[in-house]
Amino acid sequence: MSWIDDPEFTPGKPFGPQTLPYGVLGTSSGPTVAVRVGRHALPLRGIAESLGPRLADLVDGASLDPLLAAGPQAWRELRERMTGIVTADRAPAGAELLRADWHTLLLPFTVADYVDFYSSRHHAENVGHILRGGDVTPLTPNWTHLPIAYHGRSGTVVVSGTDIERPCGQRKTSREPPPVFGPTRRLDFEAEVGFVCGGESTSAVSTADLGEHVFGAALVNDWSARDIQSWEAQPLGPFLAKSFATSIAGWITPLEAFEEARVPTPEPEHALQDYLVESEPWGLDLRLQVQCNDTVISRPPFAEMAWSPAQQLAHMTINGATVRPGDLFASGTVSGPDPGHRGSLLELTWGGTDPVTLDDGEQRTFLQDGDRVTVSGSAPGRGGSVVGLGEVTGTILTATRR
Amino acid sequence: MSWIDDPEFTPGKPFGPQTLPYGVLGTSSGPTVAVRVGRHALPLRGIAESLGPRLADLVDGASLDPLLAAGPQAWRELRERMTGIVTADRAPAGAELLRADWHTLLLPFTVADYVDFYSSRHHAENVGHILRGGDVTPLTPNWTHLPIAYHGRSGTVVVSGTDIERPCGQRKTSREPPPVFGPTRRLDFEAEVGFVCGGESTSAVSTADLGEHVFGAALVNDWSARDIQSWEAQPLGPFLAKSFATSIAGWITPLEAFEEARVPTPEPEHALQDYLVESEPWGLDLRLQVQCNDTVISRPPFAEMAWSPAQQLAHMTINGATVRPGDLFASGTVSGPDPGHRGSLLELTWGGTDPVTLDDGEQRTFLQDGDRVTVSGSAPGRGGSVVGLGEVTGTILTATRR
Repeated sequence: MSWIDDPEFTPGKPFGPQTLPYGVLGTSSGPTVAVRVGRHALPLRGIAESLGPRLADLVDGASLDPLLAAGPQAWRELRERMTGIVTADRAPAGAELLRADWHTLLLPFTVADYVDFYSSRHHAENVGHILRGGDVTPLTPNWTHLPIAYHGRSGTVVVSGTDIERPCGQRKTSREPPPVFGPTRRLDFEAEVGFVCGGESTSAVSTADLGEHVFGAALVNDWSARDIQSWEAQPLGPFLAKSFATSIAGWITPLEAFEEARVPTPEPEHALQDYLVESEPWGLDLRLQVQCNDTVISRPPFAEMAWSPAQQLAHMTINGATVRPGDLFASGTVSGPDPGHRGSLLELTWGGTDPVTLDDGEQRTFLQDGDRVTVSGSAPGRGGSVVGLGEVTGTILTATRR
Repeated sequence: MSWIDDPEFTPGKPFGPQTLPYGVLGTSSGPTVAVRVGRHALPLRGIAESLGPRLADLVDGASLDPLLAAGPQAWRELRERMTGIVTADRAPAGAELLRADWHTLLLPFTVADYVDFYSSRHHAENVGHILRGGDVTPLTPNWTHLPIAYHGRSGTVVVSGTDIERPCGQRKTSREPPPVFGPTRRLDFEAEVGFVCGGESTSAVSTADLGEHVFGAALVNDWSARDIQSWEAQPLGPFLAKSFATSIAGWITPLEAFEEARVPTPEPEHALQDYLVESEPWGLDLRLQVQCNDTVISRPPFAEMAWSPAQQLAHMTINGATVRPGDLFASGTVSGPDPGHRGSLLELTWGGTDPVTLDDGEQRTFLQDGDRVTVSGSAPGRGGSVVGLGEVTGTILTATRR
């Protein structure tokens, strides 16, 4: 019986002892690295004595940066130590439990490069059909050969809970010039899973080495302005349509927690280049849920992703590009085969033609000011337990510029 | 008569007292912030007494980061102080002149986000013709309405002098599957000008406020693997074709040094959105020169760029995206109207069909292992002086992976 007296701190709940995600909490004595236990957060600064000086030093600051840089050996040691501490029958010296929902989560690490993939075949096919019509081949010819991606803006990655101001930009709705400027009319979310990198900077990471370079996973909402995107994105890809804000959950779940959730990705339709072949699968059975205000509008299945994070990281570095501590790569919108699996409003409303009805009777094609979007998720854990992912949420504010 | 006894430290030479670029030099006592004076570098740590404690603190470390963060008031003060120091007839206490070519330049600042524009109309038209044939309209319809750009990889921005290993990747040369993997066969350079940001983090920077957020300019070579690019770049833009390395000059010339070089950009073909209109021109009469090994193969004129850095920064932030100290944005390949103005081999050889002949009789379509590419440049300064841009150079190494 653990000293942590919290009904949510059990293996059947997402933030039981099988999960132990890391975050940075705002407290009256400043930002502090903490581990989530049920409804509570356990600041690590207070229990330095139980961690020992080497591990305590890594979690003593205002961010996870030193821990990310320390690498996989330190991650494993700290997780093992924390598992012992939270499952002991007596509290360690200096332990203080804070109510997680009474404190603000801060951006937990310094985002170095941010890369966004496009690895759901269902999403890519839906988008292809919506934007180019149903008669054409929805995927570009490269799609099944490599995980398509682009670099996003790391400086505007914000933590869950940050309000999102509706962005302005150029859009062009008809074939007539000129384009008009103003707040986007097609503001969307994209439910994704992000992977946070650490350890040694290196290039050409093998698919077998994901665990040496990825610290953990966090839900991501890659907010998107579809009208800005459709006008700007040729020939060099999305830019302002995405760069105004990308939200990431405040709790990062260690990659180790997902051992039981590993599943093969769907069989590729042809042989892959050697560097993309996995010896052990790194697909993940993560089950996402998207809420708009109080209505669950989608349940995207991450197990359907065509490319795993291990393949994504291998691809990202095969050209000699290094991966550094703080690099973040996200999966791309997670969509499954069913209409109820779609990870964006663009898909859920089929390009705005088929509105979603919320529980209060209101309808949405794209997001309205005041709407709150929340992505949550979990995965199967050892012995029937549930491994949680911290939610990522954000509320749309009216544009201040017109 | 200045105390600096150096024949290159005169207004007629690029690194005379009208230029005073900043860099970080490797010295036997560690990295040091320095100012270039003629053939020499003047470390600023040694002359702290003459700078005063506040300015000295900004240049006391191993990078320009604190100076970038300090903002435009500090930049102006430091430049004024340095101008006084280097033009005085007596050396300040602690001054030590190092031969610039005897020391290695280090990456002078921590690159936050890296954005690459596509703002030369001649370049975009050439590329459109080369890739899509001469009969089609070479520009996408958005091109004349907004400065197209994408995010690049900040973690692989390297300082001039760093060797560039030929990257590997997937390419597809015919219509038959599958793609093949190996070293790029179409390795190219792109001669560009980069702008280094500092000051307060903010969004929606007006075109009039470039000087409040841009510290200086530096030449950039955006190395590109054309065969990787043509296979991967649809639909989300270039990724691995660019992310293996981007070189930047080690000397950053302060924006203030270019006052005399300001020129209007070419007249746009239609009215621009308000946020892109300039009250004072920020086009720049920078004259670039590209050498491959010992042959000058191009002289790209920056004054021909269709979009100025002020328009680029205004566009980049109009959606609410913030600009932070350390952000770097580059112009895109600089090409002018004449064949001798083209800023990439893709254009100079018209897609590899018309080789360039070097002075030693060798021919090039794309870069070979061992080739050295050097971009240099200058601008007109006050009173007939010449304002220099530090060169950016790099040598191609054989791929280690095949």
